[in-house]
Amino acid sequence: MDSLLMNAFWSEVVGTAILILLGAGVVANVILPKTKGFNGGWLLINFGWGLAVFAGVFAAYKSGAHLNPAVTIGLYSADLPFATLTGPEGNITATIEPTVGNMFMYFGAELLGAFIGAVLAFLAYKKHFDQEAPAAIKLAVFSTGPEVRSYGWNVVTEFLATFVLVFFVVVSGKTPSGLGPLAVALIVVGIGASLGGPTGYAINPARDLGPRIAHFILPIKGKGSSDWGYSWVPIVGPLLGGVAAGLLGAAYS
Amino acid sequence: MDSLLMNAFWSEVVGTAILILLGAGVVANVILPKTKGFNGGWLLINFGWGLAVFAGVFAAYKSGAHLNPAVTIGLYSADLPFATLTGPEGNITATIEPTVGNMFMYFGAELLGAFIGAVLAFLAYKKHFDQEAPAAIKLAVFSTGPEVRSYGWNVVTEFLATFVLVFFVVVSGKTPSGLGPLAVALIVVGIGASLGGPTGYAINPARDLGPRIAHFILPIKGKGSSDWGYSWVPIVGPLLGGVAAGLLGAAYS
Amino acid sequence: MDSLLMNAFWSEVVGTAILILLGAGVVANVILPKTKGFNGGWLLINFGWGLAVFAGVFAAYKSGAHLNPAVTIGLYSADLPFATLTGPEGNITATIEPTVGNMFMYFGAELLGAFIGAVLAFLAYKKHFDQEAPAAIKLAVFSTGPEVRSYGWNVVTEFLATFVLVFFVVVSGKTPSGLGPLAVALIVVGIGASLGGPTGYAINPARDLGPRIAHFILPIKGKGSSDWGYSWVPIVGPLLGGVAAGLLGAAYS
Amino acid sequence: MDSLLMNAFWSEVVGTAILILLGAGVVANVILPKTKGFNGGWLLINFGWGLAVFAGVFAAYKSGAHLNPAVTIGLYSADLPFATLTGPEGNITATIEPTVGNMFMYFGAELLGAFIGAVLAFLAYKKHFDQEAPAAIKLAVFSTGPEVRSYGWNVVTEFLATFVLVFFVVVSGKTPSGLGPLAVALIVVGIGASLGGPTGYAINPARDLGPRIAHFILPIKGKGSSDWGYSWVPIVGPLLGGVAAGLLGAAYS
Repeated sequence: MDSLLMNAFWSEVVGTAILILLGAGVVANVILPKTKGFNGGWLLINFGWGLAVFAGVFAAYKSGAHLNPAVTIGLYSADLPFATLTGPEGNITATIEPTVGNMFMYFGAELLGAFIGAVLAFLAYKKHFDQEAPAAIKLAVFSTGPEVRSYGWNVVTEFLATFVLVFFVVVSGKTPSGLGPLAVALIVVGIGASLGGPTGYAINPARDLGPRIAHFILPIKGKGSSDWGYSWVPIVGPLLGGVAAGLLGAAYS
Repeated sequence: MDSLLMNAFWSEVVGTAILILLGAGVVANVILPKTKGFNGGWLLINFGWGLAVFAGVFAAYKSGAHLNPAVTIGLYSADLPFATLTGPEGNITATIEPTVGNMFMYFGAELLGAFIGAVLAFLAYKKHFDQEAPAAIKLAVFSTGPEVRSYGWNVVTEFLATFVLVFFVVVSGKTPSGLGPLAVALIVVGIGASLGGPTGYAINPARDLGPRIAHFILPIKGKGSSDWGYSWVPIVGPLLGGVAAGLLGAAYS
Repeated sequence: MDSLLMNAFWSEVVGTAILILLGAGVVANVILPKTKGFNGGWLLINFGWGLAVFAGVFAAYKSGAHLNPAVTIGLYSADLPFATLTGPEGNITATIEPTVGNMFMYFGAELLGAFIGAVLAFLAYKKHFDQEAPAAIKLAVFSTGPEVRSYGWNVVTEFLATFVLVFFVVVSGKTPSGLGPLAVALIVVGIGASLGGPTGYAINPARDLGPRIAHFILPIKGKGSSDWGYSWVPIVGPLLGGVAAGLLGAAYS
Repeated sequence: MDSLLMNAFWSEVVGTAILILLGAGVVANVILPKTKGFNGGWLLINFGWGLAVFAGVFAAYKSGAHLNPAVTIGLYSADLPFATLTGPEGNITATIEPTVGNMFMYFGAELLGAFIGAVLAFLAYKKHFDQEAPAAIKLAVFSTGPEVRSYGWNVVTEFLATFVLVFFVVVSGKTPSGLGPLAVALIVVGIGASLGGPTGYAINPARDLGPRIAHFILPIKGKGSSDWGYSWVPIVGPLLGGVAAGLLGAAYS
């Protein structure tokens, strides 16, 4: 692996770790006992996750800041470069091509970063995980779960929500704005507000699987099942949504 | 219809579909049973709709992103182009003129897109529509309704709220900002916060009628009337507001 | 009055009318009976007022968008131009000088606009004003009032809150940003969140006096006193804060 | 001290004073009795603090707007200039170097500004401090305190939260955006939403110590202990986080 790809790998690790540290953090703040944000409401969670994306994107400037296998597979499906790196004068200095090998390299980095972020969020809220709370609450800090369990319809919801995200990623370059990473952060706030109600908007396989593995491994007081039965839904729904958005977005634009 | 107009047609369809998927989605999240955002508050709804506009505008870059017949008729009244398309260097490559024919083409695309978006929102929240809830709640995911029914005053409210929106659209080009689609999204957040209290701020005939037709057609469990008696208010109020804002905005600027 | 000043006059009228339509609107939405935003919380009010400023600033592009006598007197105190108008290429085409005559012209326009905006907000919420509610609630849609009545300390709070606003106006040009009107809108959100607790942050004599006159005149069902005893506080506090910020801001920058 | 450094000193004083006036203000608004924002929720506090940073950064344009010893020590650790000042055409006119002497000058200015801001917030909310409320509530307007007291874990939380902030400061220049001070403001909103739950996110030694000294000195009705036992945590955790982020950020970028 040359240094360009090595940098991209660690860029995705760092960016996704910050994404999940802040994303799992806001959930912990709202649902774990004795926090200052306890019961802070859904909009707090939406802004927390959106700004988690915002922070992560700034950190992952060496890899195009996917932070999400659904974005990676969407760009692959659209045959768009994974990253276009620029020098101080804005000139293009390097491009990371959408190959299968690079795609799996991104997947690995995103999953590793998500795992690390979940561990850090656990450390930040350690004394609140030590409080008494239902096992399902403690799992919900890490991974998503549906309010009404119905695997087929849960996949539909995750598919649609991810489609909106990745379609935006593919077509947003056509609209001038000076927002930079804020645009995608606000799209994530909006998707959470609007389509997060049934399944908690994973919209990102790494965001769900990495923390679920962390939940499985970490010594969390009073923890229960990691709910592996549901774990394929936030992988399959988002990946299908990403592929569909990549193909349709490329045909559209 | 040449390819420029064909592209504009589908651009309005796609943009308005995303607008309504997210807009109806946030209402579903706040009012349907067992969602994660249940009872999430008015500001959540305002941000959900504002960011739905944000997402829709990025998608509709081939048509000027009206997403709203009140905007279309406002630009027509102001004799402003419906869209000014630019190439990669920012040079103007095409203009869509404000003709009566184009206006009705936009109306049709916006209505079709709104219908599609409502169907998608229904699918995303299918298992929550399957829960027991008052028929009026299920309708409210799709279409607006007044808190105090008084057709005349309801028209006044929709007129004023739409006037603010379309006046902004007509004059905002005079103020430099790097916000791009965020500016109109925030205006919609503000209009919802401030003027949405009496009627739920349709401020867009397609946003109300398209989903109302979807409600009428879709097999929604325990659904009741589609309240056609009110359906003309969120058409007439916004269209009048759009015309007034177009005429006054053009005279003002 | 030449056409430049005439345009500036109407620009302030229109901008301040939109400011107060949306600003009084959000308060109506949160405190009047049977609205959709009833009891929607302080942050909803803060965003409503901030985005009211946002909308008003876009409309008032011919006058520098003061919308507020405290801003006008602050610029006068700092000896800064009231408006610098630019042509399509960004070239300066005209300047409105900070003279005493122009200052009073701005004051008049701002007060007239605020009065008009309050009347429009009353019309938008007419059927909710027709509901039973305490007279103090109905007044609070129009004008500010303190939670703990203490004229001296109330002046202090209004002075400090307005100081932050006008100091920002005077010095913000030194920091590059592509935010345009969003910057001042967010400053107003922040001032409301942080310093609005004691007196409801008039921070603008026209914002308080114009609607208070409207309340006095309008045929509002079950209305009570317009509380003229307090009315000087949101005039004196903000004007003093504006002068202090203008003088200190000019010395600082 | 030459005039460049003298300007930087007062710039940090003014900026940090505005930061704390608004930051302590929003806490007062949410937790003191009889305020309009009473019980306004965690997201209100997050936006209040984030926009306090926003306002403070605009004011502190002569010093690079650290407003925070953890930022100062982070830039020192990364060997990055404390401030790069530019003229009207964007040309660099002066640089403030990251020396030990300048670092302590910044520390002093930040602490002084934080103290002044806390006094001003006390004045703005004087009549609400005069109400009956638990002593711990009155202290909480000034300084942070943990929900579960555990000095070691509290340091961990402050370390992680500050790391995210200072890492952003060090690497954000690599990502183009037109957001200016809004980016850091939103990062602070996000950190508060996500990592503020256990300790109230000091993430800034001056933000905690300056107001704590003010609490100790000011004649606050019914005040209790200033909780000096905890006071080292929001100093040590953020300084360590700042150093770590400066070193790692410099190695990363």
